[in-house]
Amino acid sequence: MPIPQPVYNPPFNVTRASHAVMTVKDLARSRAFYVDLLGFIVSDEDKDTLYLRGVAEACHHSLVLKRTSGEPQAERVGMRVFTEEDLEKARAHFEKAGLPVKWVEVPHQGRTLHVSDPLGSPIEFCATMEVKPRLVVEFEHHKGAIPQRIDHFQLLVPDVQKACEFWMSLGFRLSEYISPDGKDDLLFVFLQRKGNPHDIVFASAPGPRLHHAAFSIPESYQLLYVCDLAATMGLAANVEYGPGRHGPGHALFVYLRDPDGHRIELFNTHYQCIDIENEPVRWDLSFAAKRRWMLPARRQWYTEASRFAGVAPRDPAHLGDPLTLEKFVTEGMR
Amino acid sequence: MPIPQPVYNPPFNVTRASHAVMTVKDLARSRAFYVDLLGFIVSDEDKDTLYLRGVAEACHHSLVLKRTSGEPQAERVGMRVFTEEDLEKARAHFEKAGLPVKWVEVPHQGRTLHVSDPLGSPIEFCATMEVKPRLVVEFEHHKGAIPQRIDHFQLLVPDVQKACEFWMSLGFRLSEYISPDGKDDLLFVFLQRKGNPHDIVFASAPGPRLHHAAFSIPESYQLLYVCDLAATMGLAANVEYGPGRHGPGHALFVYLRDPDGHRIELFNTHYQCIDIENEPVRWDLSFAAKRRWMLPARRQWYTEASRFAGVAPRDPAHLGDPLTLEKFVTEGMR
Amino acid sequence: MPIPQPVYNPPFNVTRASHAVMTVKDLARSRAFYVDLLGFIVSDEDKDTLYLRGVAEACHHSLVLKRTSGEPQAERVGMRVFTEEDLEKARAHFEKAGLPVKWVEVPHQGRTLHVSDPLGSPIEFCATMEVKPRLVVEFEHHKGAIPQRIDHFQLLVPDVQKACEFWMSLGFRLSEYISPDGKDDLLFVFLQRKGNPHDIVFASAPGPRLHHAAFSIPESYQLLYVCDLAATMGLAANVEYGPGRHGPGHALFVYLRDPDGHRIELFNTHYQCIDIENEPVRWDLSFAAKRRWMLPARRQWYTEASRFAGVAPRDPAHLGDPLTLEKFVTEGMR
Amino acid sequence: MPIPQPVYNPPFNVTRASHAVMTVKDLARSRAFYVDLLGFIVSDEDKDTLYLRGVAEACHHSLVLKRTSGEPQAERVGMRVFTEEDLEKARAHFEKAGLPVKWVEVPHQGRTLHVSDPLGSPIEFCATMEVKPRLVVEFEHHKGAIPQRIDHFQLLVPDVQKACEFWMSLGFRLSEYISPDGKDDLLFVFLQRKGNPHDIVFASAPGPRLHHAAFSIPESYQLLYVCDLAATMGLAANVEYGPGRHGPGHALFVYLRDPDGHRIELFNTHYQCIDIENEPVRWDLSFAAKRRWMLPARRQWYTEASRFAGVAPRDPAHLGDPLTLEKFVTEGMR
Repeated sequence: MPIPQPVYNPPFNVTRASHAVMTVKDLARSRAFYVDLLGFIVSDEDKDTLYLRGVAEACHHSLVLKRTSGEPQAERVGMRVFTEEDLEKARAHFEKAGLPVKWVEVPHQGRTLHVSDPLGSPIEFCATMEVKPRLVVEFEHHKGAIPQRIDHFQLLVPDVQKACEFWMSLGFRLSEYISPDGKDDLLFVFLQRKGNPHDIVFASAPGPRLHHAAFSIPESYQLLYVCDLAATMGLAANVEYGPGRHGPGHALFVYLRDPDGHRIELFNTHYQCIDIENEPVRWDLSFAAKRRWMLPARRQWYTEASRFAGVAPRDPAHLGDPLTLEKFVTEGMR
Repeated sequence: MPIPQPVYNPPFNVTRASHAVMTVKDLARSRAFYVDLLGFIVSDEDKDTLYLRGVAEACHHSLVLKRTSGEPQAERVGMRVFTEEDLEKARAHFEKAGLPVKWVEVPHQGRTLHVSDPLGSPIEFCATMEVKPRLVVEFEHHKGAIPQRIDHFQLLVPDVQKACEFWMSLGFRLSEYISPDGKDDLLFVFLQRKGNPHDIVFASAPGPRLHHAAFSIPESYQLLYVCDLAATMGLAANVEYGPGRHGPGHALFVYLRDPDGHRIELFNTHYQCIDIENEPVRWDLSFAAKRRWMLPARRQWYTEASRFAGVAPRDPAHLGDPLTLEKFVTEGMR
Repeated sequence: MPIPQPVYNPPFNVTRASHAVMTVKDLARSRAFYVDLLGFIVSDEDKDTLYLRGVAEACHHSLVLKRTSGEPQAERVGMRVFTEEDLEKARAHFEKAGLPVKWVEVPHQGRTLHVSDPLGSPIEFCATMEVKPRLVVEFEHHKGAIPQRIDHFQLLVPDVQKACEFWMSLGFRLSEYISPDGKDDLLFVFLQRKGNPHDIVFASAPGPRLHHAAFSIPESYQLLYVCDLAATMGLAANVEYGPGRHGPGHALFVYLRDPDGHRIELFNTHYQCIDIENEPVRWDLSFAAKRRWMLPARRQWYTEASRFAGVAPRDPAHLGDPLTLEKFVTEGMR
Repeated sequence: MPIPQPVYNPPFNVTRASHAVMTVKDLARSRAFYVDLLGFIVSDEDKDTLYLRGVAEACHHSLVLKRTSGEPQAERVGMRVFTEEDLEKARAHFEKAGLPVKWVEVPHQGRTLHVSDPLGSPIEFCATMEVKPRLVVEFEHHKGAIPQRIDHFQLLVPDVQKACEFWMSLGFRLSEYISPDGKDDLLFVFLQRKGNPHDIVFASAPGPRLHHAAFSIPESYQLLYVCDLAATMGLAANVEYGPGRHGPGHALFVYLRDPDGHRIELFNTHYQCIDIENEPVRWDLSFAAKRRWMLPARRQWYTEASRFAGVAPRDPAHLGDPLTLEKFVTEGMR
């Protein structure tokens, strides 16, 4: 199937990935992980909720953790639209498309719209948030990996082509994608609104599920430091994959699992993709592998992800067969 | 005078600072500075012109150096608009405003529009450029400071308020500004379109003149390394100011002068400012100074800049009295 | 068996690990690996030999590669003694101990003594070398990982206790060692003369064989950069283990295999251990593992090493059972 | 006058620079500077004394701050000798030389010998100290600049030649020195015992006074970070000189003044100088300047230093005329 065409005059103006909302079993353990180890700033907290932001963020939160007595899950991922008018346009657009849409009140956010995309992924849009001090040069507040700001989400979905078409129809641009050698199937699509390669990424697997939320860190130094600090804090096993270098997106990365199994990516940088002549970059599966100097990710990195509350995952037509660490070790190939 | 209001539906869509065009006396000396020391990639060169780009840029050039037998000058700074339609709208807008406007052919660029802003600053707009390989992970091409991409220009102008009003009327948003303590005068304004704090900066001084073009580098490591490499290459005296930390914009920086006296800033990072609730940040002169741990800039940093070809600088109503290194040393204050 | 006692008035003064001599099949391929990728400085080369040094070394070589038409092997590891008088004392000491000893002429070195230790490891001692320019601040010569200087060797031997006793009798001090939980067996011993934790390391395995030579690099930045550069150069598969953090020695490291399979460690720093009250640090196997945030090393890291020319490896009394990547993956433990 | 000859069989074995003892007016302010800003580890403290060590040090202290109600001064710099026997030899050697010598009890140190060198510099020697945990990989204790360990002291003395001769007669080796172009006078001498370029440095100026104590930090990153953190903490004015690159010693550095005016150098690395063929490196004043990319040091860096308690400084025969920042600015030269 062909790559969808970009839409330069979208129905409403989404500006960027904004925040993720997840449930956790023990806020104190989550705080140790996110605040003491990763270095997030606490914007607000009470006995049921922890609102976190990166040091370079002036918005109230980019990560919301809610206490649950049930299974930890992802509740929703949030996007920003530019104006309140864009919110109204979004409502109209989703309604017209016959997709779920609902106005809700969310603490510390402006008027908020809950929607689901055609894959069933629960999304919320808002135009504004409460403003907090940007602590990017308040160095006495910098700890751990010094997370700067949220950058993107990755969702696992059973139909990447469909996700790609829908989000591109909203004005998202395809920066890069991975396909099997010699085929057109989309295995990974990297979609963006804010002018760097990713705001939302879709990968083929049972879903919709939240694979990870990604936050930028200042320098490669912090990628190694956060692993070292994790080991000192007894959290070595929470380092799941990396540090390593991505093909698509081009960043150095490390993935960690939080105490409830939610996955966080820390990465160091991104290039800019704003210009209209920037065509989507295709990566053949085999080329991405050729450039890989780190060990492949464990199988769990491909298969485990946070379920969205109330959304039953569905299987893709074809299950992928990625080069996992397990396969690499067993088959002795590289 | 009050801070101008932002314009959310601009007359045409400027997307980012794109390139600077400057004349130089000796292309070989310039090549040694820009390619061997700073690490720019050569996109094209002939006996009269050197086209350069950063390693993370897929556009043909972000810096154009042309050989001159006269005085080295700045020719023009370039901005990108999103579409060809935006170019047409730009032409109409400048014409209506009674400002100079002209279609020109520029090698390696799409259709290009030459304009002047009300201060007389020579600008060009284009929607596209020839595409070159993005070398951000082609590490064997990385040298020197490993410049990633152009970020912004700083222009000296005799009327910062007027520049600010004009560019904000084109949809530029004011991220930060510096005013004297207790006053509303604008000494520095930092204006942006691409979602980080700067695309174009105006400072009060005789002008219009080009103070510097700024390029991002990967890590703070390169800020020190490029100084070290300059010293090894006999170019220690080209390091003009820094490394140090900016107040506004928040980056670590170093300024170097090229062999013709053109000034280049290298800096490491920026925060994101996309959200509509982000108000312009005011810096009192005295507060910026309190946070300064490096020595003040030399007087030449405040007064010297590249003239624009054919544009006579005019003096501002009031000449500033910045804390230069010379003053700092003479008056013994900090 | 007890840890041997330190000898503070050694029979002769060994000052440091000095150089490794290895044979390779194709000097051009070796040059690409050591010079273009790792960044070694070429001190001399002809059709049969490549003499390399780190950028912070003023000695002629710390790595000698000789062309062979046979199997690539390690020839010898070299140590420095302080004076010519120490060389004479060394000869006398080895003779008295009934160990092989022979004066030889070696290009670019002062008078050189070939000996074997009781395990059969071929060693050479010299007091001086030809002096070359120290390029530590000649930044235009810095490339790749910017190796600073040789730090230590690791040898696999069938009897670590015996190796430890012999080398400590020569004045080497034990900085750290690894033993199985609850036992006194020595699995790894880290021995030093120069005041940081390692000059020579012995690990239990069939030997004597050369496991690796280790070179210091300036910052953690280069550990990631050299992997990235390897991938660009088509040498991703030469990255064998890491980047990661050592328990013993405390450094960040990465191991690479050269085109002939010889193993090189790059690491970033060491602490100082000079004071007489510094007791050897014991690491229980289980504790070292608890602090490990990276994946375990592959089995090949434990079992493969460079044979010494003309020396048949012997098996240890007990073969170890380290936590290899293969075991980790198969048994699902961490 | 000729460079003194090295002494390879010294009268007693000094192993390294060990610690500095200084008096301060307000221990709480000193603690904020040394612990909160620089990141030193507190080994012990009471109302009168603060004992500090670097994160890579297992010795009890490398910096001792004592509360005084009088003028803040340096009390003494400390060196380690290898064994108790070396201490006895030291006593005998100083006695025979007619120099002041006295046994004292010092908390947390083994038996300690107070001496003065021929310039009157108050020194103490000890062979051992109480042992504390080495925190080099206890990352949760790392803060500020993460000082690793003490490296060297710089003393201002009125007769550098005499200091150089005396300390070389004790087995110190001259790694580098600075002389005026075309002359043999010694302006700076860099002397070492531990195998890197400096343990004690003498520079020509009224003295003896303590110019600074120097501590190594892990990466260049911390040199910039500590300046940034100082600014956040309201201590921007305590950054006195740098970051910059030394000629002699080759390190990146920054100098800070503590709340009492004592000067601390932080620097990133050193090369190794162990081999007998390493000749002292001569730097002509003019060459050092040619390589300088940072601004020259302020006059105060050359003239201000901590007086030693009870020791009246004497003037050198000739007062130097260094290129201060003040001169650089006034005379417009570089």
